[in-house]
Amino acid sequence: MKGTAPAIFLPKGFRFSAVAAGIKASGRSDLALVEAAPGASAAALFTQNRVAAAPVEIGRALLRKSHGHVRAVIVNSGNANCATGPTGKRACQRVCHELAHLLHTPAEEVFPSSTGIIGVPLPVENIVRKLPQLLANRNSTSRAMREFAEAIMTTDTRLKVASERIDSDAQPISVAGVAKGSGMIHPQLATMLVYLFTDAVASPFELRTLLKAACDDTFNCISVDGDTSTNDTVLLLASGQSATTLKTSRVREKFQAALLRICQSLAQQIVADGEGVKHVVRFEITQARNRDEALHIGRAIANSLLVKTALAGSDPNWGRILAAIGACGVPLDPQRIDISIGDELVCRRGARWDFNAQNAHRALSQPTCNVRVRLGRGSATVGFTTGDLTEEYVRINATYST
Amino acid sequence: MKGTAPAIFLPKGFRFSAVAAGIKASGRSDLALVEAAPGASAAALFTQNRVAAAPVEIGRALLRKSHGHVRAVIVNSGNANCATGPTGKRACQRVCHELAHLLHTPAEEVFPSSTGIIGVPLPVENIVRKLPQLLANRNSTSRAMREFAEAIMTTDTRLKVASERIDSDAQPISVAGVAKGSGMIHPQLATMLVYLFTDAVASPFELRTLLKAACDDTFNCISVDGDTSTNDTVLLLASGQSATTLKTSRVREKFQAALLRICQSLAQQIVADGEGVKHVVRFEITQARNRDEALHIGRAIANSLLVKTALAGSDPNWGRILAAIGACGVPLDPQRIDISIGDELVCRRGARWDFNAQNAHRALSQPTCNVRVRLGRGSATVGFTTGDLTEEYVRINATYST
Repeated sequence: MKGTAPAIFLPKGFRFSAVAAGIKASGRSDLALVEAAPGASAAALFTQNRVAAAPVEIGRALLRKSHGHVRAVIVNSGNANCATGPTGKRACQRVCHELAHLLHTPAEEVFPSSTGIIGVPLPVENIVRKLPQLLANRNSTSRAMREFAEAIMTTDTRLKVASERIDSDAQPISVAGVAKGSGMIHPQLATMLVYLFTDAVASPFELRTLLKAACDDTFNCISVDGDTSTNDTVLLLASGQSATTLKTSRVREKFQAALLRICQSLAQQIVADGEGVKHVVRFEITQARNRDEALHIGRAIANSLLVKTALAGSDPNWGRILAAIGACGVPLDPQRIDISIGDELVCRRGARWDFNAQNAHRALSQPTCNVRVRLGRGSATVGFTTGDLTEEYVRINATYST
Repeated sequence: MKGTAPAIFLPKGFRFSAVAAGIKASGRSDLALVEAAPGASAAALFTQNRVAAAPVEIGRALLRKSHGHVRAVIVNSGNANCATGPTGKRACQRVCHELAHLLHTPAEEVFPSSTGIIGVPLPVENIVRKLPQLLANRNSTSRAMREFAEAIMTTDTRLKVASERIDSDAQPISVAGVAKGSGMIHPQLATMLVYLFTDAVASPFELRTLLKAACDDTFNCISVDGDTSTNDTVLLLASGQSATTLKTSRVREKFQAALLRICQSLAQQIVADGEGVKHVVRFEITQARNRDEALHIGRAIANSLLVKTALAGSDPNWGRILAAIGACGVPLDPQRIDISIGDELVCRRGARWDFNAQNAHRALSQPTCNVRVRLGRGSATVGFTTGDLTEEYVRINATYST
């Protein structure tokens, strides 16, 4: 499970820790902590699912109360603490309060996350009992960050980490991100659990703008199974310890670009590690009337079971892609649609193009493949990334909770 | 493959036939004919997919031209004649013309349907060559109707037939229906291919009203995989040969009820024979604000991969049902939602209810199961029927076209 991930550019001002608290039946690590330097700024995006987990509701409220300041993040895997009623909320608050007490910090600066099964009471005593050990273990090393990344996994099989360093006239800035997510991936505004860290100096407002822009084209443009989680959270923390601000436009642009690449990398890692996924396919929807339309069509294709099973067989069955586009509700003219798989044009003006099926099959057999859809309606483009639907996905999800 | 179907009440005025024309690689029968008595009335509903197959476009146009009169229906399986461009349209017209010529009837009274792979040219010469044999074989027996039902199957494993007899003060009326459909089942206004026959006397306008009402609660309330076909067609033909009209409200109501039951039976048969389906589950969405809302929520649950895989494992994982409801876009309050699996209340006011997991598991293990969702928003109810998502579905669809 230990990653072959490249060296991490670790932002200053963060310490990481993980322990096994007995929430996962497997006995693996399932409780994780990030401690940020006092005064760290924060911005977060959450699931748009109306059924939101207790930590999502509490996290949203406390960010308002603390005016975007977070001292610590406490994450458990193995239990989503969702649909657990008032008891679930109290359990979440109890964990935050206990940790705040140990850190001598206001309770509203402890940010909670949970991931795992829905509707099962959170084993709050197991968690509280382990908090002192969790604090004792904390460390500002790449290894500690990887252990954090490992402890938040559920059906994930691989660590998901990405980082960059940004030069500036002052001190360089580091940005690093950690993600988990493998199933129930169809984010609306955010994906399962993503934590982004930087030592730049930035206000919560600045962070929010930067985060929103980075998520729109990354976590909001992927899907594993079309199911939007109840616990999706993306959190960006800035410790300020590089002493470098984002006030100059050159640094700010570099930072935005680095944040986008990190989110893109983590989003790709989530799809590639999607439950049962063997092939990652990026649908590039071009010539749409506007971005919303392109995104809607990208989602419709990416969520079609027939498209996803064709991808599992590396089958250049473009008719299923065309049918998914036709059924999605956009009043388009099929006779203006072209589809290419890899470099092979397979459908021209809504009808079969005499293509080399071997080439198209070979392109789809690769671990990643591009499929381009030209709509002939306008100039908007969106790339939407998904994985194939395999028998393994069914196996995993037919047996997950029982 | 021969059905254990009950005796068919065969409406007067219809003759059926089927042959193997070499469209299916398997060599099975793949070309089927219904001949109606001269002057038969017709009404049809078609797919709402913007990518509509050639026979759908031509069928729609000729019903207008013939003012709702159909003399013959010609159906091929093994090829959808969709996304085949102008050549595909000409191929479809050619088949209709040749058959009209042989039947000495206007070309606009020959109604075409196709089902099978998308984007492959229709082997029109194979079809035309077999038309004389198809005509020579036609017969007004239950056996001939079953052979028709068998010839229109693709991935279906079972014949789908239903029929009723309606008593009246005059001659009794018979209604019979034949359907095919197993994958790409997520009808909008109609399902894959459904042919309904009656010997009642009814105008095309009367038929349309009756058909629309019967389809709304049956074919529009089922889903196998969430993919809307490009070829969906439901056709209702009335030969008038019972000499009994639907003018008296008593007969009309009996007829509407019988038509509804037949459509319900065929819809159930389609889901039960859905690709890889082992369990059929009816989600009863109650206390919705209106019918559209109930239908939208029913669809969202029925199309959730996580719900469908949980059904495959007979896993009473109600959290996935709740999450699917929360993500579907209706601004509802999760704390008013109750969920029951079979007779077992599993979720009360949006949170876990202390239920007997064995009972819920046992209910889901049956071939059919009811799951009731109470929304606490109003008084509208819709029943939406779907099947589980199994490894077999993936196997079938990852290897269908190559």
